Amino acid sequence: MKVEYINPFITTTVNVFATMLSCKITRVGLKVKERLQPEHEISGIIGLSGRAAGTVVLSLSRNVALSAASEMIGEEQNEINDDVADVIGELANMVAGGAKAQLTELEMSVSLPSVIIGKNHIIMGSSKVQTLSVLFSSAWGPLNVDVSLLESTQMATNITLD
Amino acid sequence: MKVEYINPFITTTVNVFATMLSCKITRVGLKVKERLQPEHEISGIIGLSGRAAGTVVLSLSRNVALSAASEMIGEEQNEINDDVADVIGELANMVAGGAKAQLTELEMSVSLPSVIIGKNHIIMGSSKVQTLSVLFSSAWGPLNVDVSLLESTQMATNITLD
Repeated sequence: MKVEYINPFITTTVNVFATMLSCKITRVGLKVKERLQPEHEISGIIGLSGRAAGTVVLSLSRNVALSAASEMIGEEQNEINDDVADVIGELANMVAGGAKAQLTELEMSVSLPSVIIGKNHIIMGSSKVQTLSVLFSSAWGPLNVDVSLLESTQMATNITLD
Repeated sequence: MKVEYINPFITTTVNVFATMLSCKITRVGLKVKERLQPEHEISGIIGLSGRAAGTVVLSLSRNVALSAASEMIGEEQNEINDDVADVIGELANMVAGGAKAQLTELEMSVSLPSVIIGKNHIIMGSSKVQTLSVLFSSAWGPLNVDVSLLESTQMATNITLD
């Protein structure tokens, strides 16, 4: 994927955390993701499709997830329940939606969010598409946003059944 | 979601397993899914978007995943590696793509697949959308296909930030 596509996801994530959660997050790294790498315990996943197809994963430590949900819901959350999962899904949705709005040339729309809960769960994308992983730090703990995007022009040649 | 939307997913899953994997699968149940319910160990997730937004999860026991990958790759697979994950992603992609082609009125496109590996991982969709879960049996073991779809007309009223 083109590296410039990652910037809207970075700025949107920073803005969503600042405006929705009053939480300042700082980008501390950017890397091409190895596959099979464990994520944090909670992942919000959104699919993107249109002139590019892709996936956005918002991956949060347990403490970041609970702190974000407490802030959004307006009362202390101590366990990962339906309400907390809904907040993580909404946050992933806002990140994908905000970035999509800046990438107008890709004419993408977003799927419903899925939220994965589980220690040591592993998310694997397609081996045919690079994932860029943005690492952030916050007062609540670490989080990252992983983005894989494949433009339709690439799809015809790259996604074939072996 | 409308119950009639589930049929294309059922017929496509049966066809994909028959034609791609020479594996006869039989539908043994259909239920509205409780949230927080553990899935099988391996899940292929695809996002759908367009006039309806949604998610399709193809959830496989370890043995079904390994047997399917062995059949597709043409050699015995004994561990869940990148190649196996790619096969599960492709299978989810074929199920979503085939069903989408039958639901032309929803004008949907599909995202890239994500594959989740992990014992006891939990996938939570949005609490605002019902998930229909179709249970199948096969000679390799059990599998299920979970579909949540929200039409755009519903989206305006149902998906709001609390």
